[in-house]
Amino acid sequence: MNLRGVGVSPGVGHGPSYVLSVSVPEPPEGAAYAGEAEQEKERAMTALTRVAGELEARGNRAGGEAEEILKAQALMAEDPGVVVKVRSLIDRGVAAPRAVFEAFTKYRDVLAGSGGYLGERAADLNDIRDRVIAVLYGQAMPALPAKPEEPYVLVARDLAPADTALLSRAQVAAFVTEEGGPTSHTAILARAMGVPAVVACPGATGIPHGVRVMVDGTSGEVEVEPAEAHVADAVGAASARRAAISAARGPGRTADGQPVPLYANVGSPADLDAALAAEAEGVGLYRTEFLYLDRTRPPSPEEQRRAYRQALEAFPGGKVCVRTLDSGADKPLAFLPVPAEPNPALGERGLRLFRRFPEVMAAQLDALAAVAEEGLRVMAPMVATAEDAAWFVRACRDRGLPSAGVMIEIPAAALRARDLLAHADFVSVGTNDLSQYTFAADRQLGAVSALQDPWQPALLDLVAMTAEVAARVGKPCAVCGEAAADPVMACVLAGLGVGSLSMAPSSLAAVRAGLAAHSLDQCRTAAHAARAQPTAADARAAARAHLPALVRLGL
Amino acid sequence: MNLRGVGVSPGVGHGPSYVLSVSVPEPPEGAAYAGEAEQEKERAMTALTRVAGELEARGNRAGGEAEEILKAQALMAEDPGVVVKVRSLIDRGVAAPRAVFEAFTKYRDVLAGSGGYLGERAADLNDIRDRVIAVLYGQAMPALPAKPEEPYVLVARDLAPADTALLSRAQVAAFVTEEGGPTSHTAILARAMGVPAVVACPGATGIPHGVRVMVDGTSGEVEVEPAEAHVADAVGAASARRAAISAARGPGRTADGQPVPLYANVGSPADLDAALAAEAEGVGLYRTEFLYLDRTRPPSPEEQRRAYRQALEAFPGGKVCVRTLDSGADKPLAFLPVPAEPNPALGERGLRLFRRFPEVMAAQLDALAAVAEEGLRVMAPMVATAEDAAWFVRACRDRGLPSAGVMIEIPAAALRARDLLAHADFVSVGTNDLSQYTFAADRQLGAVSALQDPWQPALLDLVAMTAEVAARVGKPCAVCGEAAADPVMACVLAGLGVGSLSMAPSSLAAVRAGLAAHSLDQCRTAAHAARAQPTAADARAAARAHLPALVRLGL
Repeated sequence: MNLRGVGVSPGVGHGPSYVLSVSVPEPPEGAAYAGEAEQEKERAMTALTRVAGELEARGNRAGGEAEEILKAQALMAEDPGVVVKVRSLIDRGVAAPRAVFEAFTKYRDVLAGSGGYLGERAADLNDIRDRVIAVLYGQAMPALPAKPEEPYVLVARDLAPADTALLSRAQVAAFVTEEGGPTSHTAILARAMGVPAVVACPGATGIPHGVRVMVDGTSGEVEVEPAEAHVADAVGAASARRAAISAARGPGRTADGQPVPLYANVGSPADLDAALAAEAEGVGLYRTEFLYLDRTRPPSPEEQRRAYRQALEAFPGGKVCVRTLDSGADKPLAFLPVPAEPNPALGERGLRLFRRFPEVMAAQLDALAAVAEEGLRVMAPMVATAEDAAWFVRACRDRGLPSAGVMIEIPAAALRARDLLAHADFVSVGTNDLSQYTFAADRQLGAVSALQDPWQPALLDLVAMTAEVAARVGKPCAVCGEAAADPVMACVLAGLGVGSLSMAPSSLAAVRAGLAAHSLDQCRTAAHAARAQPTAADARAAARAHLPALVRLGL
Repeated sequence: MNLRGVGVSPGVGHGPSYVLSVSVPEPPEGAAYAGEAEQEKERAMTALTRVAGELEARGNRAGGEAEEILKAQALMAEDPGVVVKVRSLIDRGVAAPRAVFEAFTKYRDVLAGSGGYLGERAADLNDIRDRVIAVLYGQAMPALPAKPEEPYVLVARDLAPADTALLSRAQVAAFVTEEGGPTSHTAILARAMGVPAVVACPGATGIPHGVRVMVDGTSGEVEVEPAEAHVADAVGAASARRAAISAARGPGRTADGQPVPLYANVGSPADLDAALAAEAEGVGLYRTEFLYLDRTRPPSPEEQRRAYRQALEAFPGGKVCVRTLDSGADKPLAFLPVPAEPNPALGERGLRLFRRFPEVMAAQLDALAAVAEEGLRVMAPMVATAEDAAWFVRACRDRGLPSAGVMIEIPAAALRARDLLAHADFVSVGTNDLSQYTFAADRQLGAVSALQDPWQPALLDLVAMTAEVAARVGKPCAVCGEAAADPVMACVLAGLGVGSLSMAPSSLAAVRAGLAAHSLDQCRTAAHAARAQPTAADARAAARAHLPALVRLGL
C-alpha cells in the first residue's frame, strides 16, 4: 500500500508503525447521569485536575519550549470559564463527559473566533478535552513507548504538543499525519528534530499498527510494507544524498561561480550559534519580535543594543539584516494595544502599527543606529506603497543608518517594486506572506494550503518582477521566505535573478549543494520553464526537468 | 473655516448645521452606588428595557430594512449575557452606569473578536451602551428634529442605524462625519437617499451648532459659514452638473462612439426596477446571496429558477451575469457550516466553499441551466488559479450553460488571467476584493482605508494586465466593483481596455455622461498618465488632467 501526502521534513525514515489513535468518541448529546449532581461535578473536577497535573509533569520533564507550551495547556485544562461551564451544565443534568465536551467546544470556538495567535491555540483545546473525556471514560491516556527496540514511524491524525514534547530521534524514525500543513506543529517539530515527516496524508490512520512503513519526507511518499530491497535502495540513496550535501562547502555559488550568498533567518540571539555552525554567510532576516513578546513595557535601549550587537559580533563585517518589529492584532503586545480586527492578517500589522505608535519605531531605529556599522541593513515588514517605503527610509536616513530596505510581502509592493526602490536601498521578498495575499489564502488554514505552495506560477511572477526591477536599478533583491529553503526552488530563485537567499540554518547545506551542482544558465532555464506552466505541480516538474543533478541527488 | 474629508455621496448640500453630540462620558472606573443592590439592579434593568423599547418603536415607525436592524439592536440591549453581567457587577458594588459600560464593552470585544459580520455589529453596541448610560444619567436621548424649517447638515462623530433610520431628504441636506469610510453605514445610507455626504472628516464635530455649512460630497470639502455668493455658485454648478448628467442618454459609449456597455449591480429581484429606471443595459453582477441568507435549508430549485427568471425577464436577450453564491466564515449560512477562521477574508469563501459543498454548486448551476437562454452568463467568485477556473467552467459546460466566467478579485487571478481564460469565456474584475488582497488591507478596517483607494497604481496595473490579456485572446473583460461608479475612474477603466462596466444603478447616469464627454483616445491617455504615477493621489490628479470635460462638469 502506498500513500502520498506533503513532505515537510526531508529524508527517508523507516521502521514499525506506531499508530497513535486518540479516538475519544463525542459523548452523545443529551447524555445524563444517574447519581447526585455534586458527585458528578466532583468526578469532572478530578478528571480536569488529573489531566492538568499530567500536562504539567510532562512539561517539567521536557523542559525548554515544550515546558512552556505544556504548562500553558495545563492552565487551559483548569480554566475558570471551563470549570464554571462544566459545573453549570452538570447542574442542568448533563453528564460529566458531555459537559466537558460542550464547555471545551465553546471555549475553543471563542478562541478560534478571536483569530491569529489565540486561534492557533484552539486546536490544543481539542487535545485537552479528549484527554479529560478519556479519563472520565476510563480509557488509557495516549502514551508512546519511551524506549522502543527500534525507532518507530509515528502515525496520527494530528499531533499535539503534549504528544511530542518528550520525543527524540532514538524513538521516532519518521512522522506521518493525516492533517496539518507545512507550518503545523508536527512539521516544525520534525524539522527541528531532523526527522523525516509527511503531513496532510489521507488514509494514514488506516495503516495497521506494527507493520513496517517507509516515509520519504522529500517526495511525500509513504510506503506500507515495502520490499526490503526497496528500503535498502532508499536508505542508500538518502545516505548518498547526505554525503553529497555535506560535500558542498564555502559561500553559496552556482557551478559556474555566480555568487548567491546564503544567509540565515534568525529569531533570537540563541539562534546565532546554529547559523554559524551551518556556515551562513550572514543573517538575512533578524526577527526582532523576541525583544517585545511577553512583556508589559518596551525593551530598554540598552537591551535592544545588546541584542543587535550580538548578531553583529557573530557576523562581523556587518552582514546582518534586521527586520523591525512585526506585530499586529493577531499577536498583540501588551504595550501596543490594537483594537480587535475581523482579519488580523489584513490589518494594522508591521510597519502599519508604527503609524499608530511612531515612538516604538523611533526607539528601535535609535537603538539600531547606536550600534550600526557599515553593512548593517534594516528593513520594514508590511510595506504596501511608495509612501510607506518613503516614510520608513526617511526615518532610517535621519538617524544615519547605512542601508534601509523594505520587505516585499504584499502583492502591491511587488507590482510597484520600482516605486519602492526609488526610496529603498534594497528589497527582500517574504514568500510566505506574499503567497498568503497573492492567493487570498490564510497561511494558518489547512483547507487552502495548496494555494500556499511556493511553486504557484503567480508567485514566481511576482518574484521575477521584483528581481528584474531591482536588477534594472542596480539594487539588491533577496528572498527570505521558507521557499528559499527548498533546493530546487533556490535554483529557480537564482535563475529569476534573486541575488541572495536567507533560510533556516538547517536548510543551508542542501541549498548550497543544489546551487553548486548547476550553472546559472541552467537555473535560468529552469526558472523560465517553471513560469511557463499554468499550475504549481507543472511548474515544479518543469523546473526539476532542467535541474538534473538535483534530481539525481534526490533533492 | 474649511474642513476636508472623503466624499462618499456626490452633490452639494447646504443648510444649518445640526451637530449630533452623543458624548456620553465613560462612567469612572470603580464607581460605586449608595443604596441597595436590588434597587440599583432595578434601575439598570429599567434603563435597558427603556432603550430596547425605544429602539423597537423606532424600528416599527421606520419599516423596511431599518426595522430589522433596529429590532436586532433592541434584542442586543436586553441580551441575557449583558443582563447577567450587569447584575453580577452591581452585586459586587459597581454602580449601574459603570456596570452597563463594562458589560457592553465585554460583549463588544467578544463580537469584534468573532470577526466579519458579527464584528461589524460590534460598533452598534457602543451606540446601545451610550443610550442606556444616557438614560441612567438622566441625559436626553439623542433625537433629531423631525420637521425642520429647512433641511440641515447633520454632523456627527459617526452615525448609528438608530440615528438615521427615520431620516428623509426633507430633513437632511447633507451628512458630515468624523469617522467612517466609503463603505460605512453613513455612506451607504447617504447614497441610497441621494444626499451628499463627507466622511472621515477630522474636526467635523467642532463645527458649532446652527451655523450654515456647505458640503461637497464629490470633492470632500466642507465649508463652514460660506460666503453667500459661493453657495450660489456651488449650487448653480451642482445643478448644471445634474443637467449635464441627465442629458446623456442611451447606451454607454465614448464621445467617438466606442461602446462601453453600462450594467447594473443587483442584489435581489427588488433592485431590478432601479436598474431599469436608470437605463442599465443589463445586469453585470447579479448577486445570489439573497436566496441563501437567513434560512436553515438551501433554496428550492423552483425558488431559484424564479429568481433567475425575474432578472432575465427584466433584461430580455439574456443580458444578465449571475454570480454564484459567495459565502464564507465571515457570514456563515446555517446549512453550510464552516469552521471558525482566524481571517475569514482569506479562508473558504466563494468558489472554495463549493469544494466543501459541491452539491450546493450543482443545485445552483442546475437551476441556472434550467432557465438559461443565450446571453446568460454565470461566473464564480474567489477564483485563484487555473485549476479553480477549469473546475468551475467544466461544471457549467456539463450543464450546457452558454457562458461561464470567473471573477478577478484575487491578485493571482489577475497575474494569471491568461491561464484562467484558457478555460473561462470571460472575466469580471471585482475591484473591492482585489484591492483588499493586493494591499493586504481589510475592506472593513478604517485604519487601512487609504489602501482601499481604487486609484492605487498597483490596482490599475492588475486591471490593465487583465484587460490586455483578455483583448489578446478575444474574450470580454468587465469591471463590476465600486471603482466603476466613479466617472473619472470609469473613463480610465475604458482606457485600460475594460469592455463593460457594472455598478449601483444610482451611479449609471454620471458614468454615462463622463464617458460620452471624452474620446477613447483621451481615456487611454488618462489611463496611461495615471499608471505612470507612484501614488493614488498622483494617479487621480494625472487622470483628471486629461479628462477636461469631466472636471468642467465637476465630476
